Amino acid sequence: MDLLTQTIKNIGPLDKAAMEKAKARQDQLTKPAGSLGRLEALSIQIAGIQGKASPEIKNKAMITMAGDHGVVDEKVGNWPREVTAQMVDNFLNGGAGINVLARQAGARIVFVDTGVASDLKPDKQLIVRKIDYATKNMCKGPAMTEPQAVKAIEAGIEIVDAEFKKGLDIVGTGDMGIGNTTASSAIFAAFSGKNVEETTGRGTGLSDEQLKHKIDVIKRALAVNKPDPSKPIEVLAKVGGYEIGGLAGVILGAAARKIPVIIDGFISGAAAIVATRLAPQAKDYIIAAHVSAEAGHAAMLEYLGPNPLLDLEMRLGEGTGAALGIMVAEAAVRTLNEMATFAEAGVSEGE
Amino acid sequence: MDLLTQTIKNIGPLDKAAMEKAKARQDQLTKPAGSLGRLEALSIQIAGIQGKASPEIKNKAMITMAGDHGVVDEKVGNWPREVTAQMVDNFLNGGAGINVLARQAGARIVFVDTGVASDLKPDKQLIVRKIDYATKNMCKGPAMTEPQAVKAIEAGIEIVDAEFKKGLDIVGTGDMGIGNTTASSAIFAAFSGKNVEETTGRGTGLSDEQLKHKIDVIKRALAVNKPDPSKPIEVLAKVGGYEIGGLAGVILGAAARKIPVIIDGFISGAAAIVATRLAPQAKDYIIAAHVSAEAGHAAMLEYLGPNPLLDLEMRLGEGTGAALGIMVAEAAVRTLNEMATFAEAGVSEGE
Repeated sequence: MDLLTQTIKNIGPLDKAAMEKAKARQDQLTKPAGSLGRLEALSIQIAGIQGKASPEIKNKAMITMAGDHGVVDEKVGNWPREVTAQMVDNFLNGGAGINVLARQAGARIVFVDTGVASDLKPDKQLIVRKIDYATKNMCKGPAMTEPQAVKAIEAGIEIVDAEFKKGLDIVGTGDMGIGNTTASSAIFAAFSGKNVEETTGRGTGLSDEQLKHKIDVIKRALAVNKPDPSKPIEVLAKVGGYEIGGLAGVILGAAARKIPVIIDGFISGAAAIVATRLAPQAKDYIIAAHVSAEAGHAAMLEYLGPNPLLDLEMRLGEGTGAALGIMVAEAAVRTLNEMATFAEAGVSEGE
Repeated sequence: MDLLTQTIKNIGPLDKAAMEKAKARQDQLTKPAGSLGRLEALSIQIAGIQGKASPEIKNKAMITMAGDHGVVDEKVGNWPREVTAQMVDNFLNGGAGINVLARQAGARIVFVDTGVASDLKPDKQLIVRKIDYATKNMCKGPAMTEPQAVKAIEAGIEIVDAEFKKGLDIVGTGDMGIGNTTASSAIFAAFSGKNVEETTGRGTGLSDEQLKHKIDVIKRALAVNKPDPSKPIEVLAKVGGYEIGGLAGVILGAAARKIPVIIDGFISGAAAIVATRLAPQAKDYIIAAHVSAEAGHAAMLEYLGPNPLLDLEMRLGEGTGAALGIMVAEAAVRTLNEMATFAEAGVSEGE
């Protein structure tokens, strides 16, 4: 059986027994029942994912994938394509937002080139799984072939698998790719059937006129390709991106390994839609870190399911929201594990 | 001049020059302008508070104050009074929610007895500044005298001052006190003129009937005492609490020392109202960590001004929300200081 099919098959339900034990412990901790709010529910979800009544969040990793997009030929953004490679360089030098926030969260970062348009300088922090030098312009045909789409997803599965082997309790997803909000909007529109106006935002900061043009480009790409929403690989191939496919693979691979996966913003959300269309049961393994300021992200999360933990009006990508989400997930697990029970502390319980 | 008057006099405006420099740096960092959302605004506010273009958040402290409330004689809650002292014991043994989250945030904790009803076991982590053994029942007269109210505030000022001398870049506020949501609702109603129904929630978890009784008790306390909202010390004395007064002092003392102060939930919010009524200019130094699940807290924050950073449906108190808020503030300052600029990283800028 091929890796993708096997991975999907390996994604099982959450461990209900672990969740019940975690819930029972939450109710015995020295606090009014329910008073840790979403941290309690999150700790129980993570117990179910890891299959442990006392889940752990010690080994933390961010996986940030980069890819270029042929659709930038249509002038959908206001940043030059070269910025993708330049920002990967910035990642490797430790100067980007994701470097700073992953450091604070105590998470290692794995940077992956899934389809940057140029060859990057070799670096021990960089994994090169380049499917191609950028996708094709989706206004003129499919962004990639279906075998390339599968290859991108399987690269993500293999990368999270390698991290799992090093020790992994939680993984966050992040992206870099000039043009990738355009592909993500197209994916969201293709699967959901929503109007492109609803699924499309200003990306790195478009004017009204530029936004209108971006919407027209996405409509054209959908009209040219007619992706069938019942075929996730086809949608990814026709209007997706290599980093988006790779992240879908990370999500599937994490779910198959019983690792909670914290998704970042709009691009990770598009990857999560692809992943959950391939494997609906992967949904329970996904934690939405935040709702971003990108128009369409709130609707995307509503479509996808998970309620975001944070709303800090961020829209940087790279995994920056996910890194903050890892801190919240760690807080959830730490309070579950480290707080004393009423009996241990000799505290009287409320009526 | 007495300590309170002097402290209020020492609270100046934010440093505009530092804020402008921080803003200019934010706009040069390798990200689309504004894409770190509220982290950017927060970093600029902290620059203004500390008076440094590159503010620091290294020395972090939580100050959690405990006090008992005479109004529990009216059966406003469903936890026995003894729980205040038992929970302080739990704090000192490291088993409470605030211990866990302050550990994660890398913040030291100062526990203060401002008015617990019993004598607590001496402990090197506990500062005893007991104004009295619990407040009086505010349904029968003032909760404390005005000199006691001033003494509570000045205790808070002195405690934050002592922390400042040890090295302090940010301080969070927290509380413990069975009955203290009742006092906080009364304070909020007294200052704002809002209906008690709007300012009162279920605390640790009241039934509809118990909530109705709590509202009646607060109405009675306000009717008996008739606190004059133009006199903050009078309001605190008549319907407040010792830990609430102490926390108001922490807020004023922090502002006077140019230290950002992260307030927790409903009780810290009541303290912040007292503080900002005494010194309106203190408002700029306050960061609201989260909106709690306690009904009335959202309205309280709207009345007070600061937009909360988090909404995790928490309502535990102790400073648990503030500890999470410290992590967000640290993320804001770290990204400002540690990210590379476009020039440093050799990244092309958007149009």
